[in-house]
Amino acid sequence: MTDITIIGNGNMARGIASRAIAAGKKVEILGQDAAKAQALANELGADVSFGTTAGAPQGSIVVLAVPFDAAKAVVSAYGDQLAGKTVVDITNPVNFETFDSLVVEPGSSAAEEIAALAPAGVNVVKAFNTTFASTLVAGESGGKPLDVFIAGDNAEATQAVSSFVSAAGMRPLVVGPLKRSRELEGFQFVVMTMQANPAFADFNWDTGLAITK
Amino acid sequence: MTDITIIGNGNMARGIASRAIAAGKKVEILGQDAAKAQALANELGADVSFGTTAGAPQGSIVVLAVPFDAAKAVVSAYGDQLAGKTVVDITNPVNFETFDSLVVEPGSSAAEEIAALAPAGVNVVKAFNTTFASTLVAGESGGKPLDVFIAGDNAEATQAVSSFVSAAGMRPLVVGPLKRSRELEGFQFVVMTMQANPAFADFNWDTGLAITK
Repeated sequence: MTDITIIGNGNMARGIASRAIAAGKKVEILGQDAAKAQALANELGADVSFGTTAGAPQGSIVVLAVPFDAAKAVVSAYGDQLAGKTVVDITNPVNFETFDSLVVEPGSSAAEEIAALAPAGVNVVKAFNTTFASTLVAGESGGKPLDVFIAGDNAEATQAVSSFVSAAGMRPLVVGPLKRSRELEGFQFVVMTMQANPAFADFNWDTGLAITK
Repeated sequence: MTDITIIGNGNMARGIASRAIAAGKKVEILGQDAAKAQALANELGADVSFGTTAGAPQGSIVVLAVPFDAAKAVVSAYGDQLAGKTVVDITNPVNFETFDSLVVEPGSSAAEEIAALAPAGVNVVKAFNTTFASTLVAGESGGKPLDVFIAGDNAEATQAVSSFVSAAGMRPLVVGPLKRSRELEGFQFVVMTMQANPAFADFNWDTGLAITK
């Protein structure tokens, strides 16, 4: 039985799927392109199933490992097929034309926009937006388990994501309601601008964001 | 000659002054209450001068180590006495009544509001809003130099703050223009809610925020 469905077949899909497999979860990869989904599933292991987004997701957790616009389209297209599921939004709605702002309005967030498109009974949770793909494959950064910031309005759903993160060897930090995604997305935008800035020679889309002590 | 003026005599004033002294800077403490400023100055060392905010700040860097409302009042009161100086805003404009939002509007920041009150020729720089006082006294968190996120519109001013941070044994991260304070303040608000949340037993206003690798 599938535990976690991952929509997408790019680097973030690979990273989150790697952690899920490390946690002993049964993973399904769904992509628009069946061949690409199959290629990633095969790379990840014999136990990983695959399919296209024409089919309904089987996992109780569905991770939207695609860019913001695609994530919105997926939620709209699936509609009631997501009922009762925990849908994880990982997106960073950065304006890549200007790289100077987000494409969501101040006082909003990608996660909230995605949640607004979902039917009642679908629990959207923000997570993994501050974890670059390469760090997810490793599961750590700077020699410590990755911090995964989690925000959501449904306690059972945030707990499900938190448990997955723990089982996968990372540190879950449930920061509050879904609207806290505004701050999570805002800060990660700044982290992304640093990766793209030659002044930070050491930052190459391979850093983590951590609460240290 | 005074290098750095610190307005305030609380924990953040102590923390930043400690780092400035570690960097070999000549520090001045100015407070509303002369006795409190003197007490902190004496605690910090014989070389630290003090006075009240009735007097003009002598340092080329002036750190507003006071809460947001007080920082605005200080900038308004000093006015042209700050001309040519680098004014460091460290505030987090959290709504402490609800602890659920900031008191600045979405799409704005404390730093930008403070800058709007300053006369032309005053360079406001955001820094030290993500560094709790206790970590500043130590200069490190989790065994690594503290990350200090810096934002500002004037390259010379951000460089001055960056150089100070480096000299004090911390890692300066100049993230962009002053408006990036929106994201720095937003995220630190979330970090603060975690300190206040009993679910995070390990977080007691003593954590750092770091870019790891």
